[in-house]
Amino acid sequence: MFHSASTDGARVRAFLKPRSIAIIGASADETKIGGRPIRYLRLAGYQGPIYPINPGREVVQGLKSYPTLQAVDAEVDLVVIAVPAQDVLAAVEACAAKGVNGAMVFSSGFAEVDEAGRALQARITEAARKGNVPLLGPNCAGTFNVREGLLATFTSGIIDKPPRIGSIGMVSQSGAFGIHMIVLAAERELGLSMCLTTGNQSDVDLSEALAYIVEDPETEVIVAIIEGVINPPRLLAAFEAARRKRKPVIVLKLGRSEAGARAAASHTASLAGSDEIFEAILRQNNVYRAHSIEELMDVAYACSLKRFPINDKVGLITVSGGVGILMADQAEAAGLQVAELPAESQRVIKELLPFAAARNPVDVTAQVITHPQLIGPMFEQLLTGGGFGSAVCFITHIARNKDLFGKLLPHFEEVARNHADRFLVLSALASPETRKHLEGMGYAVFEDPGRALKAISALVKFRHAFEAAPPETAPAVPSGALAVQHGHTYDEFQAKKMLLSAGIPCAAESLATSAQAAVVEAERIGFPLVMKIVSPDIQHKSEIGGVLLNVRSVQEVREGYATLMDRAETHAPGARIAGVLLAQQVQGGVETILGVMRDPVYGPMVMFGLGGVFVEVLKDVTFRRAPFGPSEARRMIREVKGYAMLQGVRGAPPADEDALVQALTRLSAYAAAQGDALESIDVNPFIVLPKGRGALAVDALIQSN
Amino acid sequence: MFHSASTDGARVRAFLKPRSIAIIGASADETKIGGRPIRYLRLAGYQGPIYPINPGREVVQGLKSYPTLQAVDAEVDLVVIAVPAQDVLAAVEACAAKGVNGAMVFSSGFAEVDEAGRALQARITEAARKGNVPLLGPNCAGTFNVREGLLATFTSGIIDKPPRIGSIGMVSQSGAFGIHMIVLAAERELGLSMCLTTGNQSDVDLSEALAYIVEDPETEVIVAIIEGVINPPRLLAAFEAARRKRKPVIVLKLGRSEAGARAAASHTASLAGSDEIFEAILRQNNVYRAHSIEELMDVAYACSLKRFPINDKVGLITVSGGVGILMADQAEAAGLQVAELPAESQRVIKELLPFAAARNPVDVTAQVITHPQLIGPMFEQLLTGGGFGSAVCFITHIARNKDLFGKLLPHFEEVARNHADRFLVLSALASPETRKHLEGMGYAVFEDPGRALKAISALVKFRHAFEAAPPETAPAVPSGALAVQHGHTYDEFQAKKMLLSAGIPCAAESLATSAQAAVVEAERIGFPLVMKIVSPDIQHKSEIGGVLLNVRSVQEVREGYATLMDRAETHAPGARIAGVLLAQQVQGGVETILGVMRDPVYGPMVMFGLGGVFVEVLKDVTFRRAPFGPSEARRMIREVKGYAMLQGVRGAPPADEDALVQALTRLSAYAAAQGDALESIDVNPFIVLPKGRGALAVDALIQSN
Repeated sequence: MFHSASTDGARVRAFLKPRSIAIIGASADETKIGGRPIRYLRLAGYQGPIYPINPGREVVQGLKSYPTLQAVDAEVDLVVIAVPAQDVLAAVEACAAKGVNGAMVFSSGFAEVDEAGRALQARITEAARKGNVPLLGPNCAGTFNVREGLLATFTSGIIDKPPRIGSIGMVSQSGAFGIHMIVLAAERELGLSMCLTTGNQSDVDLSEALAYIVEDPETEVIVAIIEGVINPPRLLAAFEAARRKRKPVIVLKLGRSEAGARAAASHTASLAGSDEIFEAILRQNNVYRAHSIEELMDVAYACSLKRFPINDKVGLITVSGGVGILMADQAEAAGLQVAELPAESQRVIKELLPFAAARNPVDVTAQVITHPQLIGPMFEQLLTGGGFGSAVCFITHIARNKDLFGKLLPHFEEVARNHADRFLVLSALASPETRKHLEGMGYAVFEDPGRALKAISALVKFRHAFEAAPPETAPAVPSGALAVQHGHTYDEFQAKKMLLSAGIPCAAESLATSAQAAVVEAERIGFPLVMKIVSPDIQHKSEIGGVLLNVRSVQEVREGYATLMDRAETHAPGARIAGVLLAQQVQGGVETILGVMRDPVYGPMVMFGLGGVFVEVLKDVTFRRAPFGPSEARRMIREVKGYAMLQGVRGAPPADEDALVQALTRLSAYAAAQGDALESIDVNPFIVLPKGRGALAVDALIQSN
Repeated sequence: MFHSASTDGARVRAFLKPRSIAIIGASADETKIGGRPIRYLRLAGYQGPIYPINPGREVVQGLKSYPTLQAVDAEVDLVVIAVPAQDVLAAVEACAAKGVNGAMVFSSGFAEVDEAGRALQARITEAARKGNVPLLGPNCAGTFNVREGLLATFTSGIIDKPPRIGSIGMVSQSGAFGIHMIVLAAERELGLSMCLTTGNQSDVDLSEALAYIVEDPETEVIVAIIEGVINPPRLLAAFEAARRKRKPVIVLKLGRSEAGARAAASHTASLAGSDEIFEAILRQNNVYRAHSIEELMDVAYACSLKRFPINDKVGLITVSGGVGILMADQAEAAGLQVAELPAESQRVIKELLPFAAARNPVDVTAQVITHPQLIGPMFEQLLTGGGFGSAVCFITHIARNKDLFGKLLPHFEEVARNHADRFLVLSALASPETRKHLEGMGYAVFEDPGRALKAISALVKFRHAFEAAPPETAPAVPSGALAVQHGHTYDEFQAKKMLLSAGIPCAAESLATSAQAAVVEAERIGFPLVMKIVSPDIQHKSEIGGVLLNVRSVQEVREGYATLMDRAETHAPGARIAGVLLAQQVQGGVETILGVMRDPVYGPMVMFGLGGVFVEVLKDVTFRRAPFGPSEARRMIREVKGYAMLQGVRGAPPADEDALVQALTRLSAYAAAQGDALESIDVNPFIVLPKGRGALAVDALIQSN
């Protein structure tokens, strides 16, 4: 499924840093798809040679035109292909013959349309690979690298000027989406480094592009619009590389809902993994998931200021007490702490203005009109006294009032200078000029304070991720662990043997094939006991009465054996009976469920949840990609809603969380080691006993593939 | 606690439609608090007489000034008081002497500051009431009525022109918050009708102002910023009046979180009810609760277009397939349906453009660049074919491109004309002029499609509320119902008698005071039985072993009686023992919890939740203000997360929801009838049996006050 591809970036370089560019299908009309890229390249000041390819003209937009690519008597680094779908194959073959380093196909009419298109796409991809030409698209909207004057696109969205140069890099499968983001960035005056759209990604995919952009020294913040993932290992490696380089990655995943996923299937030829799985992947890899374009832009903007707060405490200062309360509400909803200012700082603030609320939020009140200069020392006191990693100052429309704001500006400047390590927001109605001026001082400017606080909470998460140790390794799988073989369903007895071999504790048990043997085993294990029928043909034992609980004597064991055989005979005649399982009856503890499922995209995913209504009614479960270490297991355990059950409710003792962590990590290591032979594992229930007493699997099932 | 006040609006009229205005503390300086209102009234073209009161000047801002209010030789309707706190009492007394119809106090330094301020506030309020002068404030930021040229405020936020005239009315306790909203509305060119800030609301409060604004014929959408509620009955009546008039009410409640509530206590002198309670009140009264300023403005804007969608189905059309998927995701997250277009409509769309996705979202693709006119007929087909109550058309930056957009405009105009009953959104990057032009055609314009979809879901909810029958009445309390007396804690036996008298079914039971009597009662009720110790001094019976389950014989009843007496003696020596309760042991069914708690603001609130972990770990409960009818009870039952338990999980039969509905409504009627004698009722568990078999209370406790 994965084609081999070097990851050193050589295959992507020409699309973002081309030394020269030819356009096959070059048009003299600046508004045509083959004409716009030429106009934009010149508008942006591209310095390399541009070779229009157009057999019908000598000159295109003032540039010498060539009848064929071959006719260009110099090295051609990148070729832009803007011809009808049926002519693309010939163009790609020409690229191969010329030995170019990248072919970017704008043309649509391929896999996104129908089967014939899919076949045509396969042929151009094959031609590119055979010719060793990396191919971007088809059906892509091009690439940008503002520093290099590269605007290789046909969009109508850029009219007068290229986007601003900056540190935000962007990849998008969807071309129009990518362009929309670029236009929005220009609107907000966000600075971009490089952007790339992958379209149908028949060759170069989003993961490969992302890996390149992560390595780019000019790119410090990465935004990705993702529909489906083709090369998961490369994607995950790029995420981790970004974390190590302290470059935040913000993802918008398309196709979250049922209707969305349907649209995805008909839009780009991509396979959308289930949303819960992708959510788990992003969480495990410290990627921020945005749910709207606005949120994506807000977080990217906040990240681009490069002040990641040192803690989750936020200071709030306001000219409206009411908005102060709202900000406190919103900060807590975003998971930030509105910590109270120390008494001494409160005293100083009250000295400045006796009316002021001083605890945090600090309320400057309407006094700001008559004594505007008060806000400076109060803001300073908030920051000096509170040790907040970030702060939001709400000044409503004051930034629109020249006189009033003029008196405040020097104060704001001083505060920013004194606290360059904090993330500082001015929440203000401000003109673009004022905004730019404040940003120059180091402030983020947000009109809506709620959006600022949400962005701050993203920054705090990134900071945590940057400071965290690299992901821990999973425990080693014991050397004697039993391997999963293809084509099996392992019954409870076999499954638990395999789990035990992988280091996962199971209730003491024995398989007996006669009533007499059952009695012997029962006396060895001790009472009370559970007795269960064991058969690869009976998967839901309890439904046929195949489980006897609370067996307390030799006599009951003997009778029980007969009863189980009877029931199997009655309800599942002809089933292969492996015998009767006798197991220690586990008393007390908290019922949990551990599981493994093989995701078609990401491979074995480990699931954790609490038993009973938590899983059956509330679907309160969480996933991680296997394998993983103890910290990740602990994050899983703590993120389910029913976590309180493990801490102990209504006087119950806290459960042995460490034993659960160990079981999850060992299960993840075992699952990962089985390769694609493993389809699923269910450990249900997995009983977690009180702290210090361990945990054990009571029932289990393993399915192979 | 509630002062009497007419609700005919006479007390509010002068603040919003004054015939003449005097300003005590009038200043010649246009930037002072006593100077700004004069400047603004003239800027807005106020037509009535303005009387500056300033003993030091003959003329103020070109107007004749008077040394005292008494010196004005004409009727004064409204007085604005802008003097230091210590001079306000005299000013209010002057208002009383003059017989004015409203005194609006800008001055701060009252209950929001300290105890001395609180005392001063009580004195000015008393003076106003004695003089029969309605008082707004103190510490308020004034009122607006743009149609009447009324800009009675001291804010610095209005610089050049009054806000636009329109249909959005606004009330806010917080002055600065209210002003911020008005400035934002001006920024977005939203039209306002009238706005009022209540500040410390020592006399006229937000509820009274809201009631007035709801009745205003020019006001069609109402926005309220609420911190604490002083007069709940009037607030609820205003909400219901608005619903009957089909006027949406949108509320932002401040003080949601712990930190927020702390700030509220120190900011305005108001009592913030618990957030869960207020949430229930809003839900019960069909009020939309916004959680940010932006959301508040978005929903108010959408409402002001007065096209409330006829259903929750939304049509999506886009020039970017990727954004189409995102919109589908966001629509479903907002609770809207992205229904598939009928096959015939899909066929027509495919005929127009074979590449297009046609199911909904409809994707016009990049073809919009070369064939812009396609979007018109495709949009038309989407609306004609799909029967969607609303639609969003995403056109990214196209509205910025004069040529391209010029070709689209006539199409958009026709679509809007043909579908005036739908709520239509253009999601576009548009200049203010383009925006206004599109709005003139009937479109809502949102840059971010996600925000548009959220607003649409609010419109759908309003439409439902407008069409709904008026709230159903609660059932009558049976004539023989036992009343709750002050100063009691009713034990299980008494409480269940009272519940039975209120028509709430309870498990069959008897109280026995000897072992012999217990045997007689047991034989009457039938086995199996539960036996419980009954004592007003023992509230948590099970903790002392005071509950015996599964009692199966006369012998066990006799032994059980002795055991219970023993345990009571051992664990609660000296407790008053009422006897032993024998009750039918209920088999099967779903455990729920019914409760009543008296909220200090809203009175008796009924709670519903599922038993076990749902209430203990997940706090999965919901509230309604008593009394209420069956529809409201059903909404409660269906909004808890564990509702599936009642529908039947893992093969369990569905529970008797009707019996539960009846019990909830009867409980609500009974609770409401007890006045403030009732403190709380706990019915835990209340077992809901399978459909057709009813439901019954198994344990209960009633506390009075």
